[in-house]
Amino acid sequence: MRRSIATVSLSGNLQEKLLAIAAAKFDSIELFENDLLFFDGTARDVRAMVEDVGLKISLFQPFRDFEGVPDEVFRRNLDRAERKFDVMGDLDAKMMLVCSNVSPAAIADDERAAAQLHELAERAAARGIRIGYEALAWGAQVKTYGHVWEIVRRAAHSHLGVILDSFHTLALGDGVEGIAHIPGEKIFFVQLADAPLLKMDVLSWSRHFRCFPGQGDFDVAAFAAKAIEAGYTGPLSLEIFNDEFRATAPSRTARDGMRSLLFLEEQIRGQLEESPAEPGRAPRPRVDLLDPPPPPDLSGVAFLEFAVDATARGELARWLEGMGFQRVGVHRGKDVTLYRQGDLAIALNAEPESFAHSYYLLHGVSVCAIGLRAADPAGLLSRAEVFGCQRFEERVGPDEAPMPGLRAPDGSLIYVVDESFDAAADFVRDRGEGASAGLVSAVDHVGQALPGDHFDTWLLFYRAVLRLKPEESWVLPDPYGLVKSRALANAARNVRFPLSFSESSRTVVARSLTTFSGAGVNQVAFSTGDIFKAVRALRKAGLELLRIPENYYDDLAARLGLDEAFVEKLRDHGVLYDRDAEGGEFLHVYTRTFHDRFFFEIVQRQGGYDQYGAANAPVRMAAQSRTAARETSLTP
Amino acid sequence: MRRSIATVSLSGNLQEKLLAIAAAKFDSIELFENDLLFFDGTARDVRAMVEDVGLKISLFQPFRDFEGVPDEVFRRNLDRAERKFDVMGDLDAKMMLVCSNVSPAAIADDERAAAQLHELAERAAARGIRIGYEALAWGAQVKTYGHVWEIVRRAAHSHLGVILDSFHTLALGDGVEGIAHIPGEKIFFVQLADAPLLKMDVLSWSRHFRCFPGQGDFDVAAFAAKAIEAGYTGPLSLEIFNDEFRATAPSRTARDGMRSLLFLEEQIRGQLEESPAEPGRAPRPRVDLLDPPPPPDLSGVAFLEFAVDATARGELARWLEGMGFQRVGVHRGKDVTLYRQGDLAIALNAEPESFAHSYYLLHGVSVCAIGLRAADPAGLLSRAEVFGCQRFEERVGPDEAPMPGLRAPDGSLIYVVDESFDAAADFVRDRGEGASAGLVSAVDHVGQALPGDHFDTWLLFYRAVLRLKPEESWVLPDPYGLVKSRALANAARNVRFPLSFSESSRTVVARSLTTFSGAGVNQVAFSTGDIFKAVRALRKAGLELLRIPENYYDDLAARLGLDEAFVEKLRDHGVLYDRDAEGGEFLHVYTRTFHDRFFFEIVQRQGGYDQYGAANAPVRMAAQSRTAARETSLTP
Repeated sequence: MRRSIATVSLSGNLQEKLLAIAAAKFDSIELFENDLLFFDGTARDVRAMVEDVGLKISLFQPFRDFEGVPDEVFRRNLDRAERKFDVMGDLDAKMMLVCSNVSPAAIADDERAAAQLHELAERAAARGIRIGYEALAWGAQVKTYGHVWEIVRRAAHSHLGVILDSFHTLALGDGVEGIAHIPGEKIFFVQLADAPLLKMDVLSWSRHFRCFPGQGDFDVAAFAAKAIEAGYTGPLSLEIFNDEFRATAPSRTARDGMRSLLFLEEQIRGQLEESPAEPGRAPRPRVDLLDPPPPPDLSGVAFLEFAVDATARGELARWLEGMGFQRVGVHRGKDVTLYRQGDLAIALNAEPESFAHSYYLLHGVSVCAIGLRAADPAGLLSRAEVFGCQRFEERVGPDEAPMPGLRAPDGSLIYVVDESFDAAADFVRDRGEGASAGLVSAVDHVGQALPGDHFDTWLLFYRAVLRLKPEESWVLPDPYGLVKSRALANAARNVRFPLSFSESSRTVVARSLTTFSGAGVNQVAFSTGDIFKAVRALRKAGLELLRIPENYYDDLAARLGLDEAFVEKLRDHGVLYDRDAEGGEFLHVYTRTFHDRFFFEIVQRQGGYDQYGAANAPVRMAAQSRTAARETSLTP
Repeated sequence: MRRSIATVSLSGNLQEKLLAIAAAKFDSIELFENDLLFFDGTARDVRAMVEDVGLKISLFQPFRDFEGVPDEVFRRNLDRAERKFDVMGDLDAKMMLVCSNVSPAAIADDERAAAQLHELAERAAARGIRIGYEALAWGAQVKTYGHVWEIVRRAAHSHLGVILDSFHTLALGDGVEGIAHIPGEKIFFVQLADAPLLKMDVLSWSRHFRCFPGQGDFDVAAFAAKAIEAGYTGPLSLEIFNDEFRATAPSRTARDGMRSLLFLEEQIRGQLEESPAEPGRAPRPRVDLLDPPPPPDLSGVAFLEFAVDATARGELARWLEGMGFQRVGVHRGKDVTLYRQGDLAIALNAEPESFAHSYYLLHGVSVCAIGLRAADPAGLLSRAEVFGCQRFEERVGPDEAPMPGLRAPDGSLIYVVDESFDAAADFVRDRGEGASAGLVSAVDHVGQALPGDHFDTWLLFYRAVLRLKPEESWVLPDPYGLVKSRALANAARNVRFPLSFSESSRTVVARSLTTFSGAGVNQVAFSTGDIFKAVRALRKAGLELLRIPENYYDDLAARLGLDEAFVEKLRDHGVLYDRDAEGGEFLHVYTRTFHDRFFFEIVQRQGGYDQYGAANAPVRMAAQSRTAARETSLTP
């Protein structure tokens, strides 16, 4: 299907918007009127700019409050329309959007609205223009697509049809079934927008919090599938009013928009395949919908790669050994050292001419790559490419196995390996095989800190490419501002990525961002079967844990009614505790922060606990900002 | 009355909060439990810290969901309470807040709730502690202070009373009259918070958007006055959950909080004086309420002072002369040049050892002072001091009149002069008297750009000190993000200050902020009686106006149905146009931006138009960012 986006969805002036939209491979645009009004040139100049980058104007929305008005107002409105038809002629725009009248003075009379829209359509037809009528959720008289279709049906004009907008329908909780009963040729245009579920007035919700399909909570795919069931073959068009998008580089927004549409097409295809056309109905028109390689079957984190320098390598190695990792050896062609514990490998990369080194120069000591285990690595990488990700493959030595990967939104790498992957294959053993010390057994989760306005980009990346599912959102107090946190995970719960971000620049999360691309791993959590044993081992190895205040334990005892001896044990070991509604338990400790970039966590899940101890995150952040302040004050 | 603030209202760790609260001269705090839990020390350590800075803990809120529960849960809750009483003993906190149960499992049985609270009060009494019971607006069974009082009355225990919170009452639209009928001694505590009117769920509204009284839309004074009418004599305490306050320097928040309380006391006093105690009732207890000098009687902007260097002075002088100002002369003791047009004076200050020079070093060429005309300058300055403003007086020469002023929140100056003020008194005439060219006659408004999180500070400053009233809020699209705008004005409409701010760092408003204190005048609007004459004079003087796109006029004609000839005249002169619902008209033009800091606007108001042409601001911002981009790209 044709892919379109409204210019209001992006930041910038019209030229910047058009370049970004064309680069992301959209076919057409909805021209938002302000983008014409604010442009310092004629409508013909705009048309030339649009055509120059290979786009078309699929829709133009030049005024409001047209229909359901007294006769004398209607005459003036027709005059306005004629002037706008002139502009549309210059623009070569063939469809005008008329949205339902929001004026309190609008008259509740479908017959009048239909007659007025009929006359508008008649005028439009003379210019070769079609009129699409759309219900605003806050329209004075007309709020639903069903009502719009009723008026369009009465008006009975070839140049008048229905425009559907997923936000207006889904925000009202209106059903989508009725869409399939509108004749396909009378659906002139389909606008798509998602949104988070918010309890607020629908106008503000629409104007400020829309997002791309796949970034919110609506079932936009079901909505769009119904239009296609009805026989709609026009563009799928994104119309997003979002405060952050207005301030974000338009190239990123356009890329996210295209990824969102492609992901949506995959879901629509799935919905249509599940519900074949009813026997009695005419066969659906053929529409092209994306058919990408299937979502990956992931089975966990195989390895992590840290970008280090020689100094940090020694220190990080001590930390890893403290947590039970054993050194395996050094890569036979590169300055990379491998540590292992059971199935889990960690590479410390200090090779001068490497991706890791570039990453180190930008971000300091940091996690530069995550290795995921997948049943079909090649399939996943093809899928990622279809969804607009860049592939990455580094030079390899003569006998080395190449390791293909993809670039995450911040430029870090996700390598993909299969079950047969042996992390140590290209390493020269100098210590052993990395036999398990039994302290930690796997990566439980990898947390990332993001700039506040990057969350939607990451959410969509993980949902579309890896098919991770977002979990509950948390808003947590850091001493210097609120932090938002939301994890994504696969169904098997062995790939978990909590994302954290903050509007304040003073929180622990915000301060861990680097100046350059911003995002980065700030937390690596390992799972253990015995947290107390792990703590004793860590202490024996001289690894300092984050200090938890006494008052936390006093409150824990009062709040959860825990056994005194158990609370004492937690307190003695500095272990934090959380319990879910079903009695599942989470015991965890944090290390101090390594070089201001990331910390390790060791976690023990019991009884089906499936969260991340969010209740304890504020205690951690308070302790981290205390520690950071102390270290800063000691700096000469 | 005693003045208190909840620690949750401020950013920082407990020590930072306490220092800021004490410096702002509060008497006591509500200790928020997280501030205890996250503190790395004992409850006794906290008590010592609080006492060290001269504060007391007036309230502690250690748990939720206490009352209206099954018996077995109640026993556990009592155990929790006993543990928290221990902590309160260590803290020397004598009042515990219990807010109404929000659990869906809470039992709808006032008798049970009363009995359980009675037992809690009995236990508390043994420890010398009192229990205050408060209605949360989203409580499961108890949502109003009336219901709380009903339960407290039934429970009938000396150590159990009512806690009032203005937010919970006013957000629900619950009446305040009933407060006056609660016996004063049974009102244990009064929490005060304001909020903007938002259509959203009350829980999110309360948790994220509370603000200090005077910063929002509620009549907090009427609420507090009712408690005092009832006989309440305890602290007035600010309990503000606000995302921005959590990320703002605590010293500023604490100062704003104190200013808010003082302003509130003035308003409460006014309300009480208007409604003396009913004859039948017991006389009200005497409470101390602030009695500041009365609000000022302002009559306009007398002068503006620009901080300049020698180069900018020449250029700015040409701009002023283009707008009809005449040079009067040079100050007899300082490097200050005076321009005048009728009653309006403008000083260009390049004196090396002056406030203006310091301001220039921080902000570049800028408006460093505004001179306001007031009936009683001394009274206004005293009032400002009472409300926590710093006074300012610069050195003067032997025969010069001193000109006292006050520091605005960004450090700029507001001078206050009376009707007899002669701007030219200390100037040596070298050109004339500044006879009016009749182009512009007065300052219509002075616009300020603020960092996004400074708006509430300025709003309160102008409301409390100058008694300006806030007008409608606007959200306007800049090509690179949304800009919020809200004006404050006096009743006579001759002092008008529109404030603009933006969450995006890329808007015209955000880019006009300086690195240092941020805020600054970005717009000086002069009023004229004939905009077309003014434009012709400006053009003749070679002053370049901001270029308005043709498409703006095409749309204006279609949108407002204006006469063609009139639209042509607007277009020829590059004049923007707005019309209000009553037919009042606003015609205006903008200059280009001077040294990236501010622009001038010339406005003509007709037929009672009382706004600022907000509909045209996006056209301006688009043109400004276009101009800025062009200039940047020309920079070698």
